[in-house]
Amino acid sequence: MLQPELKQRRDKIRVLMAQQSVDAAIISCNTNLIYTFGRVVSGYLYLPLHDVAHVFVKRPNDLEGEHIHSIRKPEQLPELIKELGLPMPTRLMLEGDELPFNEYNRLAACFPDADVVPCGTSLIRQARSVKTEVEISMFRRSAAAHSEAYSEIPSVYRPRMTDRQLSIEVERLMRLQGCLGIFRVFGRSMEIFMGSLLAGDNAAVPSPYDFALGGEGLDPSLPGGANGTLLQAGQSFMVDMGGNFCGYMCDMSRVYSVGRLPQQAYDAHRICLDVQEAVATVARPGVSCEDLYNQAISIVQKANMADYFMGVKQKAKFIGHGIGLEINESPVIAPRIRQELEPGMVFALEPKMVLPNVGPVGIENSWVVTQDGVEKLTQCPEEIVEL
Amino acid sequence: MLQPELKQRRDKIRVLMAQQSVDAAIISCNTNLIYTFGRVVSGYLYLPLHDVAHVFVKRPNDLEGEHIHSIRKPEQLPELIKELGLPMPTRLMLEGDELPFNEYNRLAACFPDADVVPCGTSLIRQARSVKTEVEISMFRRSAAAHSEAYSEIPSVYRPRMTDRQLSIEVERLMRLQGCLGIFRVFGRSMEIFMGSLLAGDNAAVPSPYDFALGGEGLDPSLPGGANGTLLQAGQSFMVDMGGNFCGYMCDMSRVYSVGRLPQQAYDAHRICLDVQEAVATVARPGVSCEDLYNQAISIVQKANMADYFMGVKQKAKFIGHGIGLEINESPVIAPRIRQELEPGMVFALEPKMVLPNVGPVGIENSWVVTQDGVEKLTQCPEEIVEL
Repeated sequence: MLQPELKQRRDKIRVLMAQQSVDAAIISCNTNLIYTFGRVVSGYLYLPLHDVAHVFVKRPNDLEGEHIHSIRKPEQLPELIKELGLPMPTRLMLEGDELPFNEYNRLAACFPDADVVPCGTSLIRQARSVKTEVEISMFRRSAAAHSEAYSEIPSVYRPRMTDRQLSIEVERLMRLQGCLGIFRVFGRSMEIFMGSLLAGDNAAVPSPYDFALGGEGLDPSLPGGANGTLLQAGQSFMVDMGGNFCGYMCDMSRVYSVGRLPQQAYDAHRICLDVQEAVATVARPGVSCEDLYNQAISIVQKANMADYFMGVKQKAKFIGHGIGLEINESPVIAPRIRQELEPGMVFALEPKMVLPNVGPVGIENSWVVTQDGVEKLTQCPEEIVEL
Repeated sequence: MLQPELKQRRDKIRVLMAQQSVDAAIISCNTNLIYTFGRVVSGYLYLPLHDVAHVFVKRPNDLEGEHIHSIRKPEQLPELIKELGLPMPTRLMLEGDELPFNEYNRLAACFPDADVVPCGTSLIRQARSVKTEVEISMFRRSAAAHSEAYSEIPSVYRPRMTDRQLSIEVERLMRLQGCLGIFRVFGRSMEIFMGSLLAGDNAAVPSPYDFALGGEGLDPSLPGGANGTLLQAGQSFMVDMGGNFCGYMCDMSRVYSVGRLPQQAYDAHRICLDVQEAVATVARPGVSCEDLYNQAISIVQKANMADYFMGVKQKAKFIGHGIGLEINESPVIAPRIRQELEPGMVFALEPKMVLPNVGPVGIENSWVVTQDGVEKLTQCPEEIVEL
């Protein structure tokens, strides 16, 4: 990662710090380190409001460069900061929604004279919600690889496969295209392997996780996604994999069937495509997330399909979500979210329905907000693919 | 999961709570919920010292059963506890090393009259370190599947593969054997996909993560493991995948080569096998972790191989670690760890060396502590396999 790019990102955080009268931040969570330092280290990025950032690294022990220093434990931070001639922080920001309670307190105790505030997570997530040109170019790379992997899905399907077996082949296609595999989600309760493949009625099974659809999963220790359902005629199934090819998570879903589905499925799928088109047509800088959500819901209600939209027994309360280093970034396209789109935001839009005795239909693509609209990043045919 | 098993686990926690004068715990982190409730939910398990446990579930919204209740937000907890006729906690334990600072404080604020203590993580990890018979039987299932997947590795190797390409095929073998894929690690900074495949000098590259060996990785957003090295004659490579088939993480490493390696590699590998045998011979209830570590180091030093043991530029400071719902549980087999083995502990022992210009050698197996020794769970040939 080039220094001007990193400086641009750090300065976006500094603008928000200044608004909160914060004069320094300590950043040590992996996604925020990728954002501000370009890579994961075990250590701390010290970000003063008015001085250059310094990185204090525990591991790896061979990292060298300007403003990079070695450290063993957080208690050394004040002394190291002093040695660099930097002023001690008076109002210090930590990552309060990510650092565990005990670790937060240990870090805060290193700065007994500072007013330590826990707004680091929300503030950095706000900075991250509007992507730079470099980040958008990384999304384009991810989206191309993601689309390429999906285009090969029909070639790995074999008759009498289960959802689990096909999922394994799709995961392999993703990995062969360069997917790093790791699926980063914000929020400690959210877990998923590489994504989900939901077939038939399994798509209606409520899960603990706040993803768009659920699924029973293969084990109670990970109750989400595929559950061993046989892929058979008359059922639809949806592939929804996380596309992390370079840190940035693309999101994309497509629907498949073994043979023809009941006409109802194609009708419902068409409504989801209509929702996508309607939302994409009105989405532009200045439009609020709730307006986009309402636009979607009015189409669904007019079609009398609200009972199936975004789940059945347990419904997702959003139709889209920001994406970035994590799959669930800001903004959330949901009711009562007044936040407005801004150029550079990247989000997934996923109008989906679950039809009893058939399965999931609908669409998901990743979009970037441009100066005067939105542009689709994930390009791949959107009709239900018959295998 | 059967109720007597869950009650046994909860009672192990209660014994430790009583020692700390804690009269109730709120458990809401995924691994601890799997341990005490048998599955992941989004919600809270309320564990009183002297009363039956209750589970308050946000999601999934269709979970029913004795002592299972619905909840929307943590602020409802005191009222719900009161309605059940339970006494209010006076000393309440939360998961202080796992709950984010802001979430911990929100939960603690629901109980303004209680003394809230953050020892939940360390205490539950202590309870989890000695496995029940049911947990050990789950480990046996994982170990059998893990071993079966490894036995098929030679069949998926193709000449001129890179470490990344072979890793993808090994991941597929693991998944086909039932591996859930998700790799749970304790500690917010620790990330890995399904495991690592380290070839040649890449095994010596320091990483941010505290795993036994490092590796450059394929992207700075995940700097560990395979880096695209071509698998070629004269280099060794090591497969080290996490074996999570039912929640419980087996750990197992094997070494492979393309053609013959220099004799030095076989000699070093033999020393690692000797270390394994020596440690397994003395390991039994009552023996301390540091004694096991010292046993290993004395063999390595006698062979003049200390420079290569557990890494080169950056060395792991342990030769083994407890395993369970997470890959890094208690006990740690490391210097100055006085903790003694107990029957029912399960650990991975991984004496490894990295030889410059050759690559990694050594072994890793998962072991259970019995009444009078240890038993190897992962069964698979241990010599370097020539492909």
